[in-house]
Amino acid sequence: MTHYTKPLARLVEEFQKLPGIGPKSAQRMAFQILKMPAHEVRKFSDAILEAKEKIKYCRHCFNMSSENPCEICTDDRRNHSIICVVAETRDLIALEKTREYKGSYHVLQGLISPLDGITPEDLRIKELIERLQNEKTEEIILAINPSVEGEATSMYLTKLIKPSGVKISRIAFGLPVGSELEYVDEITLARALEGRREV
Amino acid sequence: MTHYTKPLARLVEEFQKLPGIGPKSAQRMAFQILKMPAHEVRKFSDAILEAKEKIKYCRHCFNMSSENPCEICTDDRRNHSIICVVAETRDLIALEKTREYKGSYHVLQGLISPLDGITPEDLRIKELIERLQNEKTEEIILAINPSVEGEATSMYLTKLIKPSGVKISRIAFGLPVGSELEYVDEITLARALEGRREV
Repeated sequence: MTHYTKPLARLVEEFQKLPGIGPKSAQRMAFQILKMPAHEVRKFSDAILEAKEKIKYCRHCFNMSSENPCEICTDDRRNHSIICVVAETRDLIALEKTREYKGSYHVLQGLISPLDGITPEDLRIKELIERLQNEKTEEIILAINPSVEGEATSMYLTKLIKPSGVKISRIAFGLPVGSELEYVDEITLARALEGRREV
Repeated sequence: MTHYTKPLARLVEEFQKLPGIGPKSAQRMAFQILKMPAHEVRKFSDAILEAKEKIKYCRHCFNMSSENPCEICTDDRRNHSIICVVAETRDLIALEKTREYKGSYHVLQGLISPLDGITPEDLRIKELIERLQNEKTEEIILAINPSVEGEATSMYLTKLIKPSGVKISRIAFGLPVGSELEYVDEITLARALEGRREV
């Protein structure tokens, strides 16, 4: 990195902290910054600071937002008697992109993972239970990855919530649209069989 | 982009302005920023502003630098009677990384390209000629890409400089190290043949 003039070396180094960015991409990005007009660069750097400063966790659903409670929790057009439980805000965003879901959310901020030392106490499970006690909830939808940690968390939540009588469901696992049965892995195929529905 | 809370949408949008960054990578980067501690984020945004503010072109060789003249032009350990002519600062950096070259540079800030409306007057050629008149230059090395624009620029410079009697050379084109003759394209192979040296 001694080949760069100091501020450039520093910028390249900072870009390398971003996920998936190696030295070459970082250099390309740094040169792009130097090529941009000064007011664009200011806008860029402001966007970074503003996002970090303004975005907090919604105190109600723990979604990331600049509002508190967040835009989803305060949206009257949504059905707040359905809570979709996700692990991270990025999962919430993926669901929002489908434009199919019009209920509310609860972001766990992680999944149970004993190997990483993450126990139910580290997640926003307590707050979810409080919501169930205080709100008129009709259904809980678990939209959690079909991974080991996801299965453990789903199981834990199911056991915890079932006794309260609230309807609890999990999103379907099966063949992705556009895939071919022949090439799909066995576990997915097994889940698709298991989740079959009468037509 | 309506799925993001506003400051996040803005940040994702800004990241998408970087070369090679699509919506998915931009989202990953934005989340990385939100995960970083506040002081790290401040450092990141400062590095962007600082690079843009401090890095100017060296008035002597037109390298990008926070110093003026740049670190290379003022380095006494370098041989300033040799000038290596490159198109862009990124080419200079590539040469510096070899640690093989200990002379000075001259950055043209582009290549002659009539199709893009870039004429010799748009490049730092006048300044190069001034250097030749004012400095004791022994050799000019053209380290310019073997592209159409690169060939045109090299030819133009050769014709311009030759009469002054300064030795002028061009870096070698041939097989890249580690490549196989069988798989190399014909033009490279022709250049390699043409550039053969007695052993």
